[in-house]
Amino acid sequence: MDIKKPRRLARSVIYKSDWVDLYADRVEFPGGRIINKHHILEFHNDFVAVVVENRQEEILFVHAYRYTLDSLEWEVPTGRIEDGENPVEGAQREVLEESGYETTDHKVVYTFNPINGISAKTFHIVTCRPGPRLDEFDRNEIEAVKWVGKNDIKDMIRNRLLKDGFTLTALLLYLCDMN
Amino acid sequence: MDIKKPRRLARSVIYKSDWVDLYADRVEFPGGRIINKHHILEFHNDFVAVVVENRQEEILFVHAYRYTLDSLEWEVPTGRIEDGENPVEGAQREVLEESGYETTDHKVVYTFNPINGISAKTFHIVTCRPGPRLDEFDRNEIEAVKWVGKNDIKDMIRNRLLKDGFTLTALLLYLCDMN
Repeated sequence: MDIKKPRRLARSVIYKSDWVDLYADRVEFPGGRIINKHHILEFHNDFVAVVVENRQEEILFVHAYRYTLDSLEWEVPTGRIEDGENPVEGAQREVLEESGYETTDHKVVYTFNPINGISAKTFHIVTCRPGPRLDEFDRNEIEAVKWVGKNDIKDMIRNRLLKDGFTLTALLLYLCDMN
Repeated sequence: MDIKKPRRLARSVIYKSDWVDLYADRVEFPGGRIINKHHILEFHNDFVAVVVENRQEEILFVHAYRYTLDSLEWEVPTGRIEDGENPVEGAQREVLEESGYETTDHKVVYTFNPINGISAKTFHIVTCRPGPRLDEFDRNEIEAVKWVGKNDIKDMIRNRLLKDGFTLTALLLYLCDMN
């Protein structure tokens, strides 16, 4: 099968930084349509969400300050994977920073693209077990930490209280036993 | 409760367009930390993903050209809600464009933020029923259309074949009976 794919005819650089680049591409689509300004966001790093499950089948939640929404959101620990880290190392560091917990038995369970209409941005979901609590959490990012059981998570979803897509996807995979 | 939230100290405009704006904000976090360049993306419209279920409990899939990934992805119909449309009208138009099907019995089942670390971008999930097939689909956006049963969707997820986060979230909600 020789499938014709969209192809770039030209690219303008709008912005470059260490976090994200923005381009406007001129793109020809398979039916012949040309889009003169197809915006593209390039993130330099992948991101990770971490489902930490303890022996009581409870999941670790953090109450995260979300400047973009001017709100606090109940989420699983998430964050950017730093240069030189793999997804498991990123997961380990993020959980430690956001909750104080060490973690073990990490597994990358899913990799996906949250906004593929404008970006190849990549999200990884990691599951793991909690170890000892080594430290306090980062009070700049997080307001509180708690453990939540399966039925309460289902209620949060049924009541549409989980607004963070990354958390929602990770927990639905867990609840559907597709982890 | 008087919770201190992150607050903007200054904003630089990097880019403005009819599709997306990019800002760099100087932000003070609750613990006192200051981030000098917190990137913010502002999308002018919300987006919708549509779970169309027929009487045989099959879901409508489209094989979508994803320029960002240089690939074709099996997804449910998704797209931007245009100015003046509500999520249901956007869903109706997107399904028609991407598959040729008219739809009925629409319901907005979830609203979430896929990338809340950098944007308040908003995604809506709409469920509906198919009506008659009125038209061909848009060959610039879509390569093929098919109906997929529940067990095959579960296999696609177990095999990590669904890479589009919006599709994944919408279908996990459906499979978990949380629609």
